[in-house]
Amino acid sequence: MGNDIMDLGHMLQPTIMATHTFLNAPALDVLLVPGGIGNRVLADNKDTSVEDFVRLRYGQLDYLLSVCTGSMSLAKAGVLDGRRATTNKGAWAEVIPNGNNVTWVPTARWVVDGNIWTSSGVSAGMDMAYAFLSHLYGKGNEKLAKTMNGIEYAPHTDPHWDPFSVVHKVPGADKNADLSDCVKPVGY
Amino acid sequence: MGNDIMDLGHMLQPTIMATHTFLNAPALDVLLVPGGIGNRVLADNKDTSVEDFVRLRYGQLDYLLSVCTGSMSLAKAGVLDGRRATTNKGAWAEVIPNGNNVTWVPTARWVVDGNIWTSSGVSAGMDMAYAFLSHLYGKGNEKLAKTMNGIEYAPHTDPHWDPFSVVHKVPGADKNADLSDCVKPVGY
Repeated sequence: MGNDIMDLGHMLQPTIMATHTFLNAPALDVLLVPGGIGNRVLADNKDTSVEDFVRLRYGQLDYLLSVCTGSMSLAKAGVLDGRRATTNKGAWAEVIPNGNNVTWVPTARWVVDGNIWTSSGVSAGMDMAYAFLSHLYGKGNEKLAKTMNGIEYAPHTDPHWDPFSVVHKVPGADKNADLSDCVKPVGY
Repeated sequence: MGNDIMDLGHMLQPTIMATHTFLNAPALDVLLVPGGIGNRVLADNKDTSVEDFVRLRYGQLDYLLSVCTGSMSLAKAGVLDGRRATTNKGAWAEVIPNGNNVTWVPTARWVVDGNIWTSSGVSAGMDMAYAFLSHLYGKGNEKLAKTMNGIEYAPHTDPHWDPFSVVHKVPGADKNADLSDCVKPVGY
């Protein structure tokens, strides 16, 4: 970074203080594992705590979810073996070697296999979250509709809509699918 | 909350530690004021620090932006007087009395008036952010396209698309506009 004194506070902060450690985390019904740059830092430091936690806890969960490259942690934990799953399409080549017994789905906004839900990158987590909440509470659930319309988000509801698999040239991506999707408020 | 011992850690945390206070914040080029429940807590406690900061700093900014009910803070600061602006459509009735000299736009995903950009609720901030970055760096900017496709978000690019103004029954909302919008990856 050179010899200049640089204030990187705006890039590296604010800090977010976790509520628990992996060791003292309480019993969980639903575990959601995010992805992102943090995962690479852990991998660089040979820190396996995320996948260890997933492996340890999976048996007691009702549901396990991942967003983006979080599915890499799930793959490393072994819980995706024999299952279908997906990941961030820009990081496809980086993620899939971590799961040789995983059926990686190239074109998918998110994938559901049993009680494991995995989504594509970043924003795809929002659409998977809506699908997951619909699964839990019912698509017509009024509170869910109110929440979605309160955050003014018109979700993508088709798990097959995944133009980013084409944008990122994922091998096996469905190049015939429409790149565009039309969305509207929940309940309308 | 009754007599039961309740662990609300999952709802009230994790804590997010700010990098500066209003008093020692550095010079700013762009100030973005979010909205949300925190604003109401401040109002309940007659804490005017957000609008005071906006009023103090506006003259030295290149751009002032707000998301959701953040425009209420901008209105209270007086910087929206004589300008067009919008806000979260679910909180419309709560926000607009704070700016009697503001031209509140009922159907708008976001509004631009001079160097002040105000968006509708929550998710609308994402679309306004893309529009703002397009404004700064150009719509065809490669880095911007890569960023949007990296986060796998297909933005709403029409500031007039605002079905939530209809959902939330905002007076003067454009009821004839299409509630749906078709989106695709940036650059495609």
